[in-house]
Amino acid sequence: MKKINLTSKYKKITEYWSPKVVAEMNDYQFKLAKIKNDFIWHSHEDTDETFIVIEGKIYIEFENETVELSKGEMIVVPKGKKHRPYADEEAKIMLIEPKGVRNTGDIVSDLTSDDNQWI
Amino acid sequence: MKKINLTSKYKKITEYWSPKVVAEMNDYQFKLAKIKNDFIWHSHEDTDETFIVIEGKIYIEFENETVELSKGEMIVVPKGKKHRPYADEEAKIMLIEPKGVRNTGDIVSDLTSDDNQWI
Repeated sequence: MKKINLTSKYKKITEYWSPKVVAEMNDYQFKLAKIKNDFIWHSHEDTDETFIVIEGKIYIEFENETVELSKGEMIVVPKGKKHRPYADEEAKIMLIEPKGVRNTGDIVSDLTSDDNQWI
Repeated sequence: MKKINLTSKYKKITEYWSPKVVAEMNDYQFKLAKIKNDFIWHSHEDTDETFIVIEGKIYIEFENETVELSKGEMIVVPKGKKHRPYADEEAKIMLIEPKGVRNTGDIVSDLTSDDNQWI
Protein backbone atom coordinates (compact mmCIF):
# COMPACT_ATOMS: atom_id res chain seq x y z
CA MET A 1 0.00 0.00 0.00
CA LYS A 2 1.46 3.28 -1.09
CA LYS A 3 0.61 6.59 0.49
CA ILE A 4 0.96 9.88 -1.35
CA ASN A 5 2.62 12.88 0.23
CA LEU A 6 1.33 16.04 -1.43
CA THR A 7 4.33 18.21 -0.50
CA SER A 8 6.74 15.70 -2.09
CA LYS A 9 4.62 15.49 -5.23
CA TYR A 10 4.42 19.27 -5.65
CA LYS A 11 8.24 19.40 -5.65
CA LYS A 12 8.14 17.47 -8.91
CA ILE A 13 5.92 20.02 -10.62
CA THR A 14 7.76 22.72 -12.52
CA GLU A 15 5.17 23.99 -15.01
CA TYR A 16 2.03 25.99 -14.33
CA TRP A 17 -1.36 24.74 -15.53
CA SER A 18 -0.17 21.21 -16.18
CA PRO A 19 -2.07 18.83 -13.85
CA LYS A 20 -0.21 15.68 -12.85
CA VAL A 21 -1.94 12.51 -11.72
CA VAL A 22 -0.95 11.24 -8.27
CA ALA A 23 -3.66 8.65 -7.60
CA GLU A 24 -6.55 6.79 -9.15
CA MET A 25 -9.78 5.74 -7.41
CA ASN A 26 -12.00 3.52 -9.57
CA ASP A 27 -12.19 5.51 -12.83
CA TYR A 28 -11.43 8.85 -11.17
CA GLN A 29 -8.09 10.59 -10.80
CA PHE A 30 -6.51 12.94 -8.29
CA LYS A 31 -4.34 15.52 -10.02
CA LEU A 32 -2.06 18.18 -8.57
CA ALA A 33 -1.24 21.43 -10.28
CA LYS A 34 0.59 24.65 -9.66
CA ILE A 35 -1.21 27.58 -11.20
CA LYS A 36 -0.43 31.25 -11.71
CA ASN A 37 -1.93 33.99 -13.86
CA ASP A 38 -4.76 33.35 -16.29
CA PHE A 39 -6.28 30.19 -17.66
CA ILE A 40 -8.82 30.08 -20.49
CA TRP A 41 -12.60 29.92 -20.45
CA HIS A 42 -13.74 26.35 -20.89
CA SER A 43 -16.26 23.77 -19.73
CA HIS A 44 -16.42 20.01 -19.33
CA GLU A 45 -19.57 18.76 -21.03
CA ASP A 46 -19.64 15.33 -19.46
CA THR A 47 -18.52 15.74 -15.89
CA ASP A 48 -18.37 17.83 -12.76
CA GLU A 49 -14.87 18.84 -11.68
CA THR A 50 -13.63 19.40 -8.13
CA PHE A 51 -11.02 21.98 -7.12
CA ILE A 52 -9.40 21.90 -3.67
CA VAL A 53 -6.94 24.65 -2.78
CA ILE A 54 -3.91 23.16 -1.02
CA GLU A 55 -1.83 26.36 -0.83
CA GLY A 56 -2.43 29.97 -1.78
CA LYS A 57 -5.49 31.62 -3.25
CA ILE A 58 -7.24 31.12 -6.56
CA TYR A 59 -10.23 32.60 -8.33
CA ILE A 60 -12.73 30.87 -10.56
CA GLU A 61 -14.62 33.19 -12.82
CA PHE A 62 -18.09 32.07 -13.90
CA GLU A 63 -20.38 33.93 -16.28
CA ASN A 64 -22.20 35.71 -13.45
CA GLU A 65 -19.77 35.76 -10.55
CA THR A 66 -16.21 35.11 -9.45
CA VAL A 67 -15.49 32.81 -6.53
CA GLU A 68 -12.36 33.30 -4.43
CA LEU A 69 -10.95 30.13 -2.90
CA SER A 70 -8.19 30.02 -0.30
CA LYS A 71 -6.22 27.17 1.22
CA GLY A 72 -8.65 24.70 2.78
CA GLU A 73 -11.52 25.58 0.49
CA MET A 74 -13.06 23.59 -2.35
CA ILE A 75 -15.69 23.85 -5.03
CA VAL A 76 -17.41 21.46 -7.40
CA VAL A 77 -17.88 23.00 -10.84
CA PRO A 78 -20.99 21.43 -12.39
CA LYS A 79 -20.68 19.78 -15.78
CA GLY A 80 -21.23 22.10 -18.69
CA LYS A 81 -20.61 25.23 -16.61
CA LYS A 82 -18.22 27.67 -18.24
CA HIS A 83 -15.41 28.71 -15.93
CA ARG A 84 -12.03 30.38 -15.98
CA PRO A 85 -9.57 29.75 -13.13
CA TYR A 86 -6.81 32.20 -12.35
CA ALA A 87 -4.40 33.09 -9.57
CA ASP A 88 -2.50 36.30 -8.94
CA GLU A 89 0.31 34.46 -7.15
CA GLU A 90 1.40 30.83 -7.43
CA ALA A 91 -1.14 28.51 -5.88
CA LYS A 92 -1.28 24.76 -5.43
CA ILE A 93 -4.50 22.95 -6.24
CA MET A 94 -5.86 19.42 -6.31
CA LEU A 95 -8.29 18.44 -9.05
CA ILE A 96 -10.56 15.42 -8.81
CA GLU A 97 -12.35 14.25 -11.93
CA PRO A 98 -12.85 11.17 -14.08
CA LYS A 99 -9.86 9.77 -15.92
CA GLY A 100 -9.42 11.22 -19.40
CA VAL A 101 -10.65 14.76 -18.78
CA ARG A 102 -8.86 17.40 -20.84
CA ASN A 103 -7.68 20.35 -18.72
CA THR A 104 -8.98 22.86 -21.26
CA GLY A 105 -12.32 21.05 -21.61
CA ASP A 106 -14.03 21.81 -24.91
CA ILE A 107 -11.06 23.91 -26.13
CA VAL A 108 -7.68 22.84 -27.49
CA SER A 109 -5.00 25.50 -26.99
CA ASP A 110 -1.38 26.00 -26.02
CA LEU A 111 -2.53 25.37 -22.46
CA THR A 112 -3.92 21.92 -23.26
CA SER A 113 -1.78 19.30 -21.54
CA ASP A 114 -1.57 15.51 -21.63
CA ASP A 115 -4.34 14.37 -19.28
CA ASN A 116 -2.56 11.29 -17.97
CA GLN A 117 0.91 12.38 -16.81
CA TRP A 118 1.76 10.74 -13.50
CA ILE A 119 4.28 11.98 -11.00
CA MET B 1 -21.76 28.69 -7.01
CA LYS B 2 -21.04 27.67 -3.46
CA LYS B 3 -17.58 27.05 -2.12
CA ILE B 4 -16.92 24.81 0.86
CA ASN B 5 -14.64 25.85 3.70
CA LEU B 6 -13.29 22.77 5.42
CA THR B 7 -12.50 24.49 8.74
CA SER B 8 -16.09 25.78 9.01
CA LYS B 9 -17.50 22.37 8.18
CA TYR B 10 -15.36 20.59 10.79
CA LYS B 11 -16.79 22.91 13.46
CA LYS B 12 -20.16 21.27 12.83
CA ILE B 13 -18.84 17.78 13.52
CA THR B 14 -19.19 16.63 17.12
CA GLU B 15 -19.03 12.83 16.87
CA TYR B 16 -16.09 10.65 15.97
CA TRP B 17 -16.32 8.14 13.11
CA SER B 18 -19.42 9.71 11.60
CA PRO B 19 -18.59 11.01 8.11
CA LYS B 20 -20.61 13.99 6.93
CA VAL B 21 -21.13 14.84 3.28
CA VAL B 22 -19.99 18.31 2.20
CA ALA B 23 -20.07 18.03 -1.58
CA GLU B 24 -21.12 15.83 -4.46
CA MET B 25 -19.32 15.39 -7.80
CA ASN B 26 -21.27 13.30 -10.31
CA ASP B 27 -22.16 10.20 -8.25
CA TYR B 28 -19.26 10.63 -5.81
CA GLN B 29 -19.26 12.34 -2.45
CA PHE B 30 -16.75 14.24 -0.35
CA LYS B 31 -17.16 13.45 3.33
CA LEU B 32 -15.43 14.92 6.37
CA ALA B 33 -14.89 13.06 9.60
CA LYS B 34 -13.19 13.48 12.93
CA ILE B 35 -11.71 10.24 14.12
CA LYS B 36 -10.07 9.05 17.33
CA ASN B 37 -9.22 5.64 18.75
CA ASP B 38 -10.14 2.40 17.01
CA PHE B 39 -12.43 1.65 14.11
CA ILE B 40 -13.39 -1.85 13.01
CA TRP B 41 -11.96 -4.12 10.33
CA HIS B 42 -14.04 -3.87 7.17
CA SER B 43 -13.86 -3.70 3.40
CA HIS B 44 -15.85 -2.17 0.57
CA GLU B 45 -16.52 -4.85 -2.01
CA ASP B 46 -17.58 -2.57 -4.84
CA THR B 47 -15.35 0.46 -4.66
CA ASP B 48 -12.00 1.99 -3.88
CA GLU B 49 -12.03 4.56 -1.07
CA THR B 50 -9.79 7.60 -0.70
CA PHE B 51 -8.54 9.00 2.61
CA ILE B 52 -6.91 12.44 2.81
CA VAL B 53 -5.57 13.60 6.17
CA ILE B 54 -6.49 17.24 6.75
CA GLU B 55 -5.21 17.51 10.34
CA GLY B 56 -3.37 15.19 12.68
CA LYS B 57 -2.12 11.67 12.11
CA ILE B 58 -3.98 8.45 11.39
CA TYR B 59 -3.06 4.82 10.82
CA ILE B 60 -4.65 2.35 8.48
CA GLU B 61 -3.98 -1.26 9.38
CA PHE B 62 -4.03 -3.76 6.51
CA GLU B 63 -3.59 -7.49 6.84
CA ASN B 64 0.17 -7.30 6.16
CA GLU B 65 1.18 -3.79 7.14
CA THR B 66 0.11 -0.57 8.81
CA VAL B 67 0.37 2.73 6.99
CA GLU B 68 0.85 5.96 8.94
CA LEU B 69 -0.65 9.05 7.30
CA SER B 70 -0.06 12.60 8.46
CA LYS B 71 -1.58 15.92 7.44
CA GLY B 72 -1.10 16.39 3.69
CA GLU B 73 -0.96 12.69 2.93
CA MET B 74 -3.51 10.48 1.19
CA ILE B 75 -4.10 6.88 0.24
CA VAL B 76 -6.51 5.01 -2.00
CA VAL B 77 -7.69 1.78 -0.40
CA PRO B 78 -8.49 -0.69 -3.22
CA LYS B 79 -11.92 -2.26 -3.34
CA GLY B 80 -12.22 -5.46 -1.38
CA LYS B 81 -9.11 -4.75 0.71
CA LYS B 82 -9.65 -5.27 4.43
CA HIS B 83 -8.56 -2.29 6.48
CA ARG B 84 -8.89 -0.82 9.94
CA PRO B 85 -8.34 2.91 10.46
CA TYR B 86 -7.38 4.29 13.85
CA ALA B 87 -5.91 7.40 15.42
CA ASP B 88 -4.24 7.88 18.78
CA GLU B 89 -5.29 11.52 18.96
CA GLU B 90 -8.17 13.31 17.24
CA ALA B 91 -7.55 13.65 13.52
CA LYS B 92 -9.53 15.22 10.71
CA ILE B 93 -9.92 13.32 7.47
CA MET B 94 -11.63 13.69 4.11
CA LEU B 95 -13.12 10.62 2.45
CA ILE B 96 -13.94 10.46 -1.24
CA GLU B 97 -16.05 7.60 -2.49
CA PRO B 98 -19.22 6.88 -4.46
CA LYS B 99 -22.53 7.96 -2.97
CA GLY B 100 -24.15 5.30 -0.81
CA VAL B 101 -21.04 3.70 0.67
CA ARG B 102 -21.52 2.43 4.24
CA ASN B 103 -18.71 3.57 6.56
CA THR B 104 -18.35 0.11 8.05
CA GLY B 105 -18.38 -1.58 4.63
CA ASP B 106 -19.46 -5.21 4.81
CA ILE B 107 -20.16 -4.96 8.56
CA VAL B 108 -23.09 -3.41 10.43
CA SER B 109 -22.16 -2.36 13.96
CA ASP B 110 -22.64 0.39 16.53
CA LEU B 111 -20.16 2.37 14.44
CA THR B 112 -22.29 2.19 11.30
CA SER B 113 -23.59 5.66 10.50
CA ASP B 114 -26.10 7.09 8.02
CA ASP B 115 -24.15 7.42 4.79
CA ASN B 116 -25.87 10.54 3.53
CA GLN B 117 -25.79 13.10 6.35
CA TRP B 118 -24.91 16.53 4.97
CA ILE B 119 -23.44 19.39 6.91
